[in-house]
Amino acid sequence: MTEATPNPATPNPATFDILGIGNAIVDVVSPADDQFLSRHDMRKGAMMLVDAAAADTLYAAMPPGQESSGGSAANTCAVAAALGARVAYIGKVAVDPLGVVFRHDIKAVGVHFPTSPLTGGAPTARCLILVTPDGQRTMNTFLGACVTLDGSDVDPALVAAASVTYLEGYLFDPPAAQAAFHKAASAAHAAGRQVALSLSDPFCVNRHRSAFRDLVAHHVDILFANETEITSLYEQNTFEAAAEAARADVGLAVLTRGEAGSLILRGDQSMTVAAEPTHVLDTTGAGDAYAAGFLTGLTAGKPLQVCGRIGSIAAAEVISHYGARLAADLHGRIAALAG
Amino acid sequence: MTEATPNPATPNPATFDILGIGNAIVDVVSPADDQFLSRHDMRKGAMMLVDAAAADTLYAAMPPGQESSGGSAANTCAVAAALGARVAYIGKVAVDPLGVVFRHDIKAVGVHFPTSPLTGGAPTARCLILVTPDGQRTMNTFLGACVTLDGSDVDPALVAAASVTYLEGYLFDPPAAQAAFHKAASAAHAAGRQVALSLSDPFCVNRHRSAFRDLVAHHVDILFANETEITSLYEQNTFEAAAEAARADVGLAVLTRGEAGSLILRGDQSMTVAAEPTHVLDTTGAGDAYAAGFLTGLTAGKPLQVCGRIGSIAAAEVISHYGARLAADLHGRIAALAG
Repeated sequence: MTEATPNPATPNPATFDILGIGNAIVDVVSPADDQFLSRHDMRKGAMMLVDAAAADTLYAAMPPGQESSGGSAANTCAVAAALGARVAYIGKVAVDPLGVVFRHDIKAVGVHFPTSPLTGGAPTARCLILVTPDGQRTMNTFLGACVTLDGSDVDPALVAAASVTYLEGYLFDPPAAQAAFHKAASAAHAAGRQVALSLSDPFCVNRHRSAFRDLVAHHVDILFANETEITSLYEQNTFEAAAEAARADVGLAVLTRGEAGSLILRGDQSMTVAAEPTHVLDTTGAGDAYAAGFLTGLTAGKPLQVCGRIGSIAAAEVISHYGARLAADLHGRIAALAG
Repeated sequence: MTEATPNPATPNPATFDILGIGNAIVDVVSPADDQFLSRHDMRKGAMMLVDAAAADTLYAAMPPGQESSGGSAANTCAVAAALGARVAYIGKVAVDPLGVVFRHDIKAVGVHFPTSPLTGGAPTARCLILVTPDGQRTMNTFLGACVTLDGSDVDPALVAAASVTYLEGYLFDPPAAQAAFHKAASAAHAAGRQVALSLSDPFCVNRHRSAFRDLVAHHVDILFANETEITSLYEQNTFEAAAEAARADVGLAVLTRGEAGSLILRGDQSMTVAAEPTHVLDTTGAGDAYAAGFLTGLTAGKPLQVCGRIGSIAAAEVISHYGARLAADLHGRIAALAG
């Protein structure tokens, strides 16, 4: 357990506020009805991993779609950069047009993206997303080039140059990426920096519970999770019990609860932050955007309550339209916050 | 000059109502301000052809985007198929992920798409589209694989099997495609079928005016154009003078005027059709959708006035949201039309 505020022993000022590491994915979004989900054995709202053949079969059955850059940590990086943070990202795409799209979109918001692409292997990862009339998204991810991300893609000097290294839980699905995760966490702590983890989704937590429990207890300084993720991680029946387990386990726990706002726990401190009122159109990316806002505030030295407010404002903007990245300029609203 | 209604001498019933031939393009749409257009020497609202290097430079400068299938005739085919017409499409993509996206999207709405992709050459065409805050779109097209579409891609048996072969004016930009155009027109007329042409945009008309004038007078049965296109084609100062020139030149002229509706001219008949009231969000694809609705009605044997109404309803749907293809199911509204 380390302190959530910058370590005063850090010798050099950080070059980056946030370094994100995650699965570099292009989203393919199509409308679908509930019958389509049943016919293809999908659990509504979940993210399922699919192989190349299953992805091809599913894509062939899907209606026309729209493509845009996605990936949980990549969304967080793009939103944080748009909010003014200095951001870098590590993730693996292929040398193909979707890889070009991914690289373009994350660089276009000012994110430093040094990871060399995979040549001659699997294509750029894609997530086939079905949006049902109730606004829920059901995701089917073909990891493609992401499965080759490993420790060699993590430059310890880059990690050492970032105030916070932010890792998505989905990174535990491709096996080689776990080595990248551990290498990054070690390099961050060796340089006196912080490590943050987002649990990604409750099914991801189920797949990797023991690894996550070990990580959170021993290698993570800042934990982001929503209600279903945190109760799943600690196998508790109530949010309150899970929150207390998180408080005991990690230096800073940031727990989001949708419309009920968020709860920030540090040591014996507890802070609640209200959700920002908005018209919800598509909840995808809400957690990614909240983490982006929170870390943008934290690395700028804002009080935790203000960090939560920035997170809530960013999340509210993202869920008010389709797509997981910011569509509006929030600089004015964030500058107006006290603190 | 041939009749606009199916030729009674046609020996076999058509397998397809519409065969579209055009540039197979994936759109990349990003927001931009007017300064961005000036800095990159773009004329607002126009479609400009760019080479691979210029496309790369422009893409690097563009904000994050969204990708979806486009192409004028391809949009018409997708809308017509969604309206219930039996549709085929000829257009050239490459063997790359954007080519897969294009093929998926047009096949997913039921369009027959037999054209073999280009291997080992240029990539799938893309149109870099900047949307300014006033809702206008400025387009920059890198034709890529489209420049290899030629006569060998046109199967005369497929043309002979379609009631109407529909050609986009943009097809005159890649030089080899003109041979495809002429081969298709000859095959259609040899089989007693109809040839339709859409002028695409006034700048395209400027680039190819004499070729278009010759075509319209000698090889086209149905002409689609908007006000600026038709006045440019005939180099007239008024819409009325241009419309009379079109009446004298072509069997069936269908002239769209935005909010002012459309004018249908056949021989000495003149019919006006009101525009369908809607909230305009993005006018891209309005002409493509109108042509789709009109031809769907025409090939189903509807009176011209009803064809115009179906065109207006389809266009109104498409301009009420972003994207050039239908988002709503219009079957009920169209079935309710008299005729």
